[in-house]
Amino acid sequence: MSEERTSEKLVELAKRRGYFFPASNAYGGVGGFYTFGPQGASLKGNLEDAWRERFAVAEGNMEIDAPTVMPEPVFEASGHLETFDDMLVECPECGESHRADHVVEDATDIEDAESLPIPEVEEVIAEYEIGCPTCGAGLAEQAVESFNLMFATNIGPGDADPGYLRPETAQGIFVEFPRLKEYARNQLPFGVTQIGRAYRNEISPRRSIVRTREFTQAELEQFVDPEGEGPDLSSVEDVPVTLYPATEQVADDGSEVETTIGDAVADGVIADPWIAYFLGVAREWYAAVGVDMDRFRFRQHLAGERSHYASDCWDAESEVDGNWIEIAGFAHRGDYDLSKHDEYSDERFTIFRQYDEPKTVERATVDPDMSYLGPEFGADAGAIVEELEKLAGRDRTAFEGETVAVDLDGETHEVPTEKVGFSVDEETIAGEHVVPHVIEPSFGVDRLLYTVLHHAYREDEVDGEERTHLALEPEVAPTFVGVFPLQSDDDLEAEARAIAADLRAAGLSVTYDDSGNIGRRYRRQDEVGTPFCVTVDYESLDDRAVTVRERDSTVQKRLPIDDLPETLAALRSGDLTFEDVDGA
Amino acid sequence: MSEERTSEKLVELAKRRGYFFPASNAYGGVGGFYTFGPQGASLKGNLEDAWRERFAVAEGNMEIDAPTVMPEPVFEASGHLETFDDMLVECPECGESHRADHVVEDATDIEDAESLPIPEVEEVIAEYEIGCPTCGAGLAEQAVESFNLMFATNIGPGDADPGYLRPETAQGIFVEFPRLKEYARNQLPFGVTQIGRAYRNEISPRRSIVRTREFTQAELEQFVDPEGEGPDLSSVEDVPVTLYPATEQVADDGSEVETTIGDAVADGVIADPWIAYFLGVAREWYAAVGVDMDRFRFRQHLAGERSHYASDCWDAESEVDGNWIEIAGFAHRGDYDLSKHDEYSDERFTIFRQYDEPKTVERATVDPDMSYLGPEFGADAGAIVEELEKLAGRDRTAFEGETVAVDLDGETHEVPTEKVGFSVDEETIAGEHVVPHVIEPSFGVDRLLYTVLHHAYREDEVDGEERTHLALEPEVAPTFVGVFPLQSDDDLEAEARAIAADLRAAGLSVTYDDSGNIGRRYRRQDEVGTPFCVTVDYESLDDRAVTVRERDSTVQKRLPIDDLPETLAALRSGDLTFEDVDGA
Repeated sequence: MSEERTSEKLVELAKRRGYFFPASNAYGGVGGFYTFGPQGASLKGNLEDAWRERFAVAEGNMEIDAPTVMPEPVFEASGHLETFDDMLVECPECGESHRADHVVEDATDIEDAESLPIPEVEEVIAEYEIGCPTCGAGLAEQAVESFNLMFATNIGPGDADPGYLRPETAQGIFVEFPRLKEYARNQLPFGVTQIGRAYRNEISPRRSIVRTREFTQAELEQFVDPEGEGPDLSSVEDVPVTLYPATEQVADDGSEVETTIGDAVADGVIADPWIAYFLGVAREWYAAVGVDMDRFRFRQHLAGERSHYASDCWDAESEVDGNWIEIAGFAHRGDYDLSKHDEYSDERFTIFRQYDEPKTVERATVDPDMSYLGPEFGADAGAIVEELEKLAGRDRTAFEGETVAVDLDGETHEVPTEKVGFSVDEETIAGEHVVPHVIEPSFGVDRLLYTVLHHAYREDEVDGEERTHLALEPEVAPTFVGVFPLQSDDDLEAEARAIAADLRAAGLSVTYDDSGNIGRRYRRQDEVGTPFCVTVDYESLDDRAVTVRERDSTVQKRLPIDDLPETLAALRSGDLTFEDVDGA
Repeated sequence: MSEERTSEKLVELAKRRGYFFPASNAYGGVGGFYTFGPQGASLKGNLEDAWRERFAVAEGNMEIDAPTVMPEPVFEASGHLETFDDMLVECPECGESHRADHVVEDATDIEDAESLPIPEVEEVIAEYEIGCPTCGAGLAEQAVESFNLMFATNIGPGDADPGYLRPETAQGIFVEFPRLKEYARNQLPFGVTQIGRAYRNEISPRRSIVRTREFTQAELEQFVDPEGEGPDLSSVEDVPVTLYPATEQVADDGSEVETTIGDAVADGVIADPWIAYFLGVAREWYAAVGVDMDRFRFRQHLAGERSHYASDCWDAESEVDGNWIEIAGFAHRGDYDLSKHDEYSDERFTIFRQYDEPKTVERATVDPDMSYLGPEFGADAGAIVEELEKLAGRDRTAFEGETVAVDLDGETHEVPTEKVGFSVDEETIAGEHVVPHVIEPSFGVDRLLYTVLHHAYREDEVDGEERTHLALEPEVAPTFVGVFPLQSDDDLEAEARAIAADLRAAGLSVTYDDSGNIGRRYRRQDEVGTPFCVTVDYESLDDRAVTVRERDSTVQKRLPIDDLPETLAALRSGDLTFEDVDGA
């Protein structure tokens, strides 16, 4: 079973069974937008709930819900307006747009064309005489341009307030830091999460729901004191992980490393304890929601691959179609985000860090004689006072001579030192304003959903017939149990509906199905990934028992109707395995 | 306590306690965008979950999750591109944009200026010499313009693929009908729900989160056979409702009517049974999530207020600030939506309705002699054949003479009838293609959240001190229980944390708080709307009992620690009231 074929079959199954399909298809669609059908929306919701439970609730973090449209100044500060670009080359013949770096990578041995400057990419295209991937026409004469990946719009009438669809949920958290820190009572560390839509106007979206233009992120921004203690690693130190460190990637005979979080920290493979903590938590969580750990690893970014401000970054990668795809990133972003907003906005993006004991420091101040400065410098007097104040903080020696030289708009003014009121005083300070550092675990929900379906896809043979099923984890499967009357019969249907209602009341996700023969109904639930099916037959009306079938093993057991809610709830929570269920 | 003041206090509380606040405030913000803080995101999520449980799960409907960005052809078909406009007038002095109809309504006795044509609005502004609401400058000379409320963007590089942020979640359902009907196995009726973001580029957003530019809708599209049976009304016929029918609104002494769903249907006040069903379900649901039924009604749209295609529409309205605001709409949209997409797209938006018995019908067909038509009409021959086929379906008498007259691009061609091969045959057909009708319950989540907070807001006096609390329903409150150690003490804190962990394991939403004195912690939870608080004191370490305090009554009872998970879970589910709890 080739991986390529799994992918094709999965996309077909996803469409037919209601997982996902290209959106607005009746109008020919437009690349990069997918609609999640009933099964997909349910699976996605379950994955989001599981993430929330682990990364928000269990960690004691706050979850917020911010707008997807944000005003331009936010992205001036974040740097997205200037640098969130891909390289675009348009075919002179067919007019198709392509990512210039991908075109280069596909046609040459160059591996990381994205990091090349534009003129160099143009040269490579000309040199290799690279043609349009769609129609083959030469691209050599075409200019390569920077294309900003944010969707732009205007807020309100006219174009006075440009806005953008957020390229990541993170900015919705960063920009509200001054308020969020109050909710955290100004104590570090604290974490804020958000699950929501993000948008990237990809030049050429591709590979199903792997690279789309609208997607869902689940992000956690962990705000920490740069001098604070790291997290307690005891809960994750024994977690086994497959790591692919940068050093191994560049080594000639480099390979993935099997280790534990504790050993990786001790060996210095993972430098930052917060990153180590989140890798450990994430690995356990991914396994719980159905990612195959034999097709999973953490890959460290190479130095050139990281954002300039990030001190370290690891991706969670899953293998599908024989390729590794990034499904999460764990970046140490330093003080970059909050510093930028602190600089660009009107508010302070800092936390006041109280000293254990107040410190006494010397502080240089000025108290200028305005009755001299006013007449002497006129309109410039105010600005000169400001400069003097700055100078006092910066360079005390400037006040040692007879006059103090103040530079103002390129002109030097000499102020008699005696008129400046310079003094150095002792001051007791209780603490200092600190820009917190940010560790960001950022999860892609759509890619996770794609991975989970891929890793759950099974083909086997049952009673001589080929069968396809999705071995989804009970915790995230869209439907937990299917309930069927064996045949079209009022009594059987009434009993089956009553059982379905009881199971729903027990908090289980239930599908009732009475259409088609029983084998067809089993196949339908197998393909949807429903872990258990319950069939009501004529005997059930007498012996008050039903047939329960397990999806993966197709083993059937006869269980009392009255025990069903409790037994199935225990099977869902993992307190019981089907093998251990006593049945006739 | 005036309603106006409640609103102001609520907005302040919402910001301080983390319910909601204007987004991107550090950059001065931009009108109409709000961020939900930790409490607000949780309340919103709980309201969405409650809606999903009632309108998707319990109704057996499908839920989908479609993109928020959709391509232009969708909105050409839906009519939004042409008609989703507000009237805009810009001040010549201050440049502020205003809704012209609001400006007119505020300055005159005209009540429904939105329905006036633009030239008439311009005349009224000139006649009444209406000034700019911001700066007072005269607006008489200003042109009033249509302003489309959709946020526009471009998909991919260039402007070849315009896209829009969906103005309602509904289009994401309608446009996928051809696939959704397959999931419903081509059987009517079926319902499809979606909870998600929608966007309207309001000219002047206002009133906190009531009229925003980005908001969340929960919509249900119920697809029904226009000749099918209505729903079973037995489960809702006794539901009491306050109705404000159109006839009462236009009558001189008209008033709201207190009735039941059953009586309203019997009396013909609610004409459509599907509308009646959803009003009944919605009324019960709104009460359950905390809307005060003394400040709630269903108001029928006046004929002029409805969309031209809607045969009936009722709004759910809640009273806040002494004003009625729309929090849901229940529209019978007929076949408008699916007909339009059927007409504009490449797919069929119909359901095949099988007859009980196959019908035999006469069908007129043509089988033209191309050896004659070809030479005779040359390039027009194909088009003439098409016209002949249409004519046969439309008007058999056209084939009764010697020649048949065919109009083609304004020119009439005469075709000898003997060359046309006209015949009328009997045909057996099994059914027909029907465009389903749509009944649409459409809920605004943000406005519901605003209503629930408003209706929960209480001020009272406890032990001689003023207290503010939110009497939120336990089902939707962001936090169900606060757990406190009485004082800062390692043993008390350890015990309190253990209790918090147990309660979390029982599925309850828990806040642990050990900061500030106990009175302050109670006040904090009261303001957040936490129904219960548990306090661990020194005695608890001996007698294994704690003090449980009910938010609304502030009554305190002493309960055994071991019973807490069960007792509190029963209080949350409503199986138990605090009054009935046995405590010391």
